[in-house]
Amino acid sequence: MILHSRILNHLRNRSLSLTSTVFIQHNVEPFRQYSFYKEQYVKRNSNSYAKYTVYIAITTSVLGLCYYTFYKQVHALNKKPISCGEFRADLKTYNLKEVGKHYNKENGIWVMFKQGVYDITDFIEKHPGGSSKIMMAAGSSIEPFWSIFANHNREEIYELLESMRIGNVSEDDVISNVINDDPYLKEPKRHKILKINGQKPFCAEPPPSLLIESFITPTELFYVRNHLPVPEIDLKSYNLELAIEEVTKKSLKFEDIKKYPKYTITSTVMCAGNRRSEMAQVKHLKGLSWSVGAVSNATWTGARLYDILKDLGINEDNYNHVQFEGYDLDPSGTPYGASVPISKAMDPRADIILAYEMNGQPIPRDHGFPIRVIVPGVAGARNVKWLAKIIVSKEESPSQWQQGDYKCFSPNTDWDTVDFSKAPAIQEMPVISAICKPEQSEIIKVIDGKINVKGYAWSGGGRKIIRVDITNDRGKTWHVADLIAEDNNAKEGRYWSWTLWSIDLPVKKGSKEIEIWAKAVDASYNVQPENVENIWNLRGFLCNAYHRVKVKLEY
Amino acid sequence: MILHSRILNHLRNRSLSLTSTVFIQHNVEPFRQYSFYKEQYVKRNSNSYAKYTVYIAITTSVLGLCYYTFYKQVHALNKKPISCGEFRADLKTYNLKEVGKHYNKENGIWVMFKQGVYDITDFIEKHPGGSSKIMMAAGSSIEPFWSIFANHNREEIYELLESMRIGNVSEDDVISNVINDDPYLKEPKRHKILKINGQKPFCAEPPPSLLIESFITPTELFYVRNHLPVPEIDLKSYNLELAIEEVTKKSLKFEDIKKYPKYTITSTVMCAGNRRSEMAQVKHLKGLSWSVGAVSNATWTGARLYDILKDLGINEDNYNHVQFEGYDLDPSGTPYGASVPISKAMDPRADIILAYEMNGQPIPRDHGFPIRVIVPGVAGARNVKWLAKIIVSKEESPSQWQQGDYKCFSPNTDWDTVDFSKAPAIQEMPVISAICKPEQSEIIKVIDGKINVKGYAWSGGGRKIIRVDITNDRGKTWHVADLIAEDNNAKEGRYWSWTLWSIDLPVKKGSKEIEIWAKAVDASYNVQPENVENIWNLRGFLCNAYHRVKVKLEY
Repeated sequence: MILHSRILNHLRNRSLSLTSTVFIQHNVEPFRQYSFYKEQYVKRNSNSYAKYTVYIAITTSVLGLCYYTFYKQVHALNKKPISCGEFRADLKTYNLKEVGKHYNKENGIWVMFKQGVYDITDFIEKHPGGSSKIMMAAGSSIEPFWSIFANHNREEIYELLESMRIGNVSEDDVISNVINDDPYLKEPKRHKILKINGQKPFCAEPPPSLLIESFITPTELFYVRNHLPVPEIDLKSYNLELAIEEVTKKSLKFEDIKKYPKYTITSTVMCAGNRRSEMAQVKHLKGLSWSVGAVSNATWTGARLYDILKDLGINEDNYNHVQFEGYDLDPSGTPYGASVPISKAMDPRADIILAYEMNGQPIPRDHGFPIRVIVPGVAGARNVKWLAKIIVSKEESPSQWQQGDYKCFSPNTDWDTVDFSKAPAIQEMPVISAICKPEQSEIIKVIDGKINVKGYAWSGGGRKIIRVDITNDRGKTWHVADLIAEDNNAKEGRYWSWTLWSIDLPVKKGSKEIEIWAKAVDASYNVQPENVENIWNLRGFLCNAYHRVKVKLEY
Repeated sequence: MILHSRILNHLRNRSLSLTSTVFIQHNVEPFRQYSFYKEQYVKRNSNSYAKYTVYIAITTSVLGLCYYTFYKQVHALNKKPISCGEFRADLKTYNLKEVGKHYNKENGIWVMFKQGVYDITDFIEKHPGGSSKIMMAAGSSIEPFWSIFANHNREEIYELLESMRIGNVSEDDVISNVINDDPYLKEPKRHKILKINGQKPFCAEPPPSLLIESFITPTELFYVRNHLPVPEIDLKSYNLELAIEEVTKKSLKFEDIKKYPKYTITSTVMCAGNRRSEMAQVKHLKGLSWSVGAVSNATWTGARLYDILKDLGINEDNYNHVQFEGYDLDPSGTPYGASVPISKAMDPRADIILAYEMNGQPIPRDHGFPIRVIVPGVAGARNVKWLAKIIVSKEESPSQWQQGDYKCFSPNTDWDTVDFSKAPAIQEMPVISAICKPEQSEIIKVIDGKINVKGYAWSGGGRKIIRVDITNDRGKTWHVADLIAEDNNAKEGRYWSWTLWSIDLPVKKGSKEIEIWAKAVDASYNVQPENVENIWNLRGFLCNAYHRVKVKLEY
């Protein structure tokens, strides 16, 4: 019984789940039954030698069975990695110099995390953040990088890292690795109502029902998708560098930008990851779990990029891209970056502006103070915040976010087969819609046989939303929603704002539960695809399938 | 037996089908069997009175049965409408003057066809060709119109018309209605390989397997979609009128157009009705039954519309549309017409040209000799042939083809509920693809576990095709096709040409039949919708759902 109770204690100490505990109790039962059989046996057999032989045999068998039953669990528990980066007595110890030699594929690529040394050579190409980013930590500590890309601080990532563990860092060297500065200490204050998807960098969305209450999203509710810590910028010393390829041609102060003709546009900005949470339900993927709120609409006031580039004497035939760099830096000092094709940058109809006002006020820190590039109709990621530099170039932005992220692939492309160089960077966005009211699983009162359904629809490239169709019988009957708010001042082909829609949707009498589907059609008569499955992609971008919401009805 | 044989004769005279004849013979059989029973009966019954009573009773019963059996057929034959427009003795006769009074809703709208008078008042709004077109015949004969819009000459339409029959035209007046001139007598010669979907006006497409054999479609194989008879134009007297609203500002001779800088673009032209035959399978609709071949790709050489409008001193802020009129006229003298937004017409990036060459040769008559407007990335219907007039205007083209046709609606919108003013005219086209090889029901040899599949993909608005995904297991596995031909000289955002693709598609070992699906993705990451059902529309336009082809496999 000693062995059995030790296992029991061991498992209890490890805070085993209720299921396991029940299982243990269940397996104790044979012992209780044993007493009964023993009594019966004793009555029939007076020979005490035989009695004890049987007792021992049964006890041994039962204990053996129990041990076997728990073996795998115990084994698994013993195998559970110790906390990522903790000292491990079974491994060799290396000093900084030894680790430092492993910074390339020839010697193998090693990194340090706390007291752990890891060989990540084979992982480099599979790194979702791109191989160039992870290579910056080669031969040294990844901790400063993870304090910036703080989304790495998750159990799942720790386990993955620990699986590549090869040794310990010598204790003297560990001390020098500790980073005390949290680069996120000086983040701006945010409105409590935002649902936070990522704290560092800060990523948050407003609740759906609030989102569609207003054609112009109040600035405090505007979704936030930062990629790095929010930089602190002093307006007096703010400087925008203008370069052609590697050569800086000009520097603009904030006041210089304000001297250009002032334009105001109303433009929706949407994260390419909006609605990703639905895609993640189909098959596991990597990325922030956005609901339908990674989108907002605001007015933006500033100078046209077209005017600034014309002033610089740019002939668009000589270049292919216009790159933007932000003041937000990663630990290596590399800024956030993105680019757009020069044909868009030099097209006055594209309405790209260097915005210094959002909804009539100076742009707040979270949204790019003092200057954010607004590239209407194009993925949020190209609308670079805290603008530091514009580079006219033959090349696309070399930024990881342009080259190795914000791209889509075929549903069967996985992390082993993906080649980011083979897909174009997401620029103009496809047609999308979402039901914001009611929300999933809500209970709705049916009034006169109808329920009210509301949402938004939008398409990239300035393509107007021309129709939104709604069904609650899986497409047997489609009802056309009323388009209740759109940009009435937009010029042809420049519908940068979303469209809000509403419908009093007839429901079948007596239905207790319905699933509502929404699909939008844009001016090019592009329509949303039906199912997420067939547009699934490993980074979970552009989830623009029909939006589906199940609700319960009451009468 | 007299009644029976009269029915028999009547039916035979009406050229009854073999089935009916067999049916009749089968029902004569009881009479033969009767002889046998009669003999037996006679043997047993010597009483001749009883004998004849039974004889009469049986004969009457059998005849009654036969009469009842054929009643419905005979009734149906008698009810079959007499040939549309033939004289009907049961109806009143009207003269031209009387019919002529019924030209508006107040008096009721009457038309004549051959010797028939029809009250079409209630049909006006349901006319698929629009109410304005049909109103041109109000109070008079529709025959000249139907000789132009010759697709009316179908049994289905005749029946519909005859259902509105109210009288006969007096015989004297009928003679004056006869039109001897066939406006289609002077059509150009066409290549025999084209599959004809409509003879008058001429509409035809090349076979799919030939279509994708060449990135540039040979001119003779280029699909044809005419809306009226092909006009005969003498180059020497050719004249292009340029107007602002109602006022003609300028006239250009052919040679004047050739003096403008010469541009060559490669552009696919696609009919908005391409692939309509698939949509018609879901639910009945009206329109030509195009397969996948209402699309072709050619080089077009000519003057830029932008240069011509700039020369005219147009300030685009003052207008909204640029209308085009062709030299092809309907019976009322109204030309074919269409328009595009002025923002497109005045955008040099839109590459709209007044083409006088197609694939390096003067444009042939079927394709718009001597000038066709090429509006790349926009529905074929806006690429006006035989260009006669350009009108810069605040208004869209008033043409029926712009106002009451070439628009899409929600799947549940029918001819009773449709309001053409509520949908925008189709301009830029959505992303589409088609499998051209193998074709539906083909038998394909599997080689090394694979079959070769080929097709095209295209998107409107200059959006490049970035990927084509193929599956033969209903989306469980998607394979990425090779893009084997595209316009390598196209500028960013100006991919006017289609993309040809090919894939050696792995098939599951032993499969005897597979269904291949194709879907394309364009540079805006718009993707084709999955099913035709959810994009069905009453005119059958823009059938861009996944293309599906079932084939049989052999090993």
